[in-house]
Amino acid sequence: MLSSIKVFAPATVANVACGFDVLGFALHHPGDEVIMKLADHKQVIIKEITGDDGKLSLQAEKNTVSVTVQQYLNFFGLAQGVEIWLHKKMPLGSGLGSSAASAVAGLVAINELLGRLKPTADLLPWAMEGERVACGSAHADNVAPSLLGGMVLVRSYSPLAVCKIPVPAELVAVVVNPHLELSTAVSRGVLPKEIKLSTAVKQWGNVGGLVAGFCTSNFDLISQSLQDHVAEPLRACLIPHFQAVKQAALDSGALGSSISGAGPSIFALCRGEESAQKVAKAMSKVFENEQIGCNVYVSAINQEGAKIIG
Amino acid sequence: MLSSIKVFAPATVANVACGFDVLGFALHHPGDEVIMKLADHKQVIIKEITGDDGKLSLQAEKNTVSVTVQQYLNFFGLAQGVEIWLHKKMPLGSGLGSSAASAVAGLVAINELLGRLKPTADLLPWAMEGERVACGSAHADNVAPSLLGGMVLVRSYSPLAVCKIPVPAELVAVVVNPHLELSTAVSRGVLPKEIKLSTAVKQWGNVGGLVAGFCTSNFDLISQSLQDHVAEPLRACLIPHFQAVKQAALDSGALGSSISGAGPSIFALCRGEESAQKVAKAMSKVFENEQIGCNVYVSAINQEGAKIIG
Repeated sequence: MLSSIKVFAPATVANVACGFDVLGFALHHPGDEVIMKLADHKQVIIKEITGDDGKLSLQAEKNTVSVTVQQYLNFFGLAQGVEIWLHKKMPLGSGLGSSAASAVAGLVAINELLGRLKPTADLLPWAMEGERVACGSAHADNVAPSLLGGMVLVRSYSPLAVCKIPVPAELVAVVVNPHLELSTAVSRGVLPKEIKLSTAVKQWGNVGGLVAGFCTSNFDLISQSLQDHVAEPLRACLIPHFQAVKQAALDSGALGSSISGAGPSIFALCRGEESAQKVAKAMSKVFENEQIGCNVYVSAINQEGAKIIG
Repeated sequence: MLSSIKVFAPATVANVACGFDVLGFALHHPGDEVIMKLADHKQVIIKEITGDDGKLSLQAEKNTVSVTVQQYLNFFGLAQGVEIWLHKKMPLGSGLGSSAASAVAGLVAINELLGRLKPTADLLPWAMEGERVACGSAHADNVAPSLLGGMVLVRSYSPLAVCKIPVPAELVAVVVNPHLELSTAVSRGVLPKEIKLSTAVKQWGNVGGLVAGFCTSNFDLISQSLQDHVAEPLRACLIPHFQAVKQAALDSGALGSSISGAGPSIFALCRGEESAQKVAKAMSKVFENEQIGCNVYVSAINQEGAKIIG
């Protein structure tokens, strides 16, 4: 049996325009790395966290990765000690599924170290619990693509049911993460409890179009369907220069653009790497012109998800 | 140029479970037949209507088919006289798109008689206007599949955008039309103006799943996604024995079952003809046991739509 392992779990884009709460996809980079060692003691201990600017707690009961690993061990009644090194190689609180990536990396690591007690797909409910610890609600549209890779539809939360949606190989994502603070609580707070039926119909018309576009490699349909009538209109004002960045993406050839997760990151989907590089430049230039620093990521859809890298 | 023509336009199932207002499909039968002749006079005249038990008006300004044809002629500034024979070979007010079929048959007939002034797909806006005359609102999820055939997604109403969703060839529909009265106005009246965001998320999760299931011939996914959390819970009580009929469909192997259009017809989707025949028997037996007569239709998805038959 292995006594030490290194796992990568990718960043993810959730709330893919019309697919609020139900569609998310994985990037090849950035992401989290977790190194985990089985220990002689009986505790789950975080030895080190890097890349978080000291924002995350080293206390096991307060960190997503350790809480998730502990729940996994508890489920099997195992008093196994574990030591964890968490390397955040992605921005925190950015709308890129940072806590999801940590939870997923930890779960894949412990499951592998203990000889795969569960198939990878069955780790999803624990990963969702990790999300609950981190942000108060157990959403699946970040953890599912981080774990499984691909464009993932969370068809149902109760019972939990997810499926991978085929996407054309040419599909490339651009994500721009501006160095701005936006709390998930604030971003969730602007959403209403009820929406107009007519608005809901618009949204699920586009969900149908987007999924059909993905499945049939119809880029026009993908482009036309990448619209959010529910969350984006209310959240756009929380992200300075959002409209200008989105417009820059569309003007430079993006299929569509919207808020990544709860923001402040902004994503665009493009046809091909060349188009994506052009779109990435145009989007980041808007923030640069406003003296706002940003990270820019260009990545095809990561079909692999979390993986063992050492 | 032709001076006389006979056109068939098929019945349709709209509001396909989660696809409220956005998904509809065409049947091979039943449907409407329109015979149309160019005349020397300048009026649009209905010569005869059969199969309607005298319920439809012979006055040109009050009938869907003649109003639609008149609008088409007005658009082109043509003072062309037309004589129409309308043979209703399907139940009226049944949730099977009766007025949509009439409007579509009339439009295809006049367009063909005048040498195809428009491609078939471009007739859709006029057909929707015919729907407005018949039921007060211009929905497209009956007229679009009746005109174009297939499983049609109305992705957007403004601007109007429809697309055909590929479905597995094995998919067979059962429609049971009980001899009960249910006005579209009553059926529309029970719908709220607003719905919970959480309910809307459930609905578009299933729309995504249903479309993905159709596109990838995943019958399990189709079955799991054939759920309506919005209209069916409120309309079910308007159709006596709805729950029993639906349960009979599911118990005998249907992938799913819900209300066809605004009701009172009930549809089921099945895998294969044999399964569909079994489901049809089980569904109709429930109504028969309650001394309620019904028509039963079993049909694969009609990919052709309206067609010239003479």
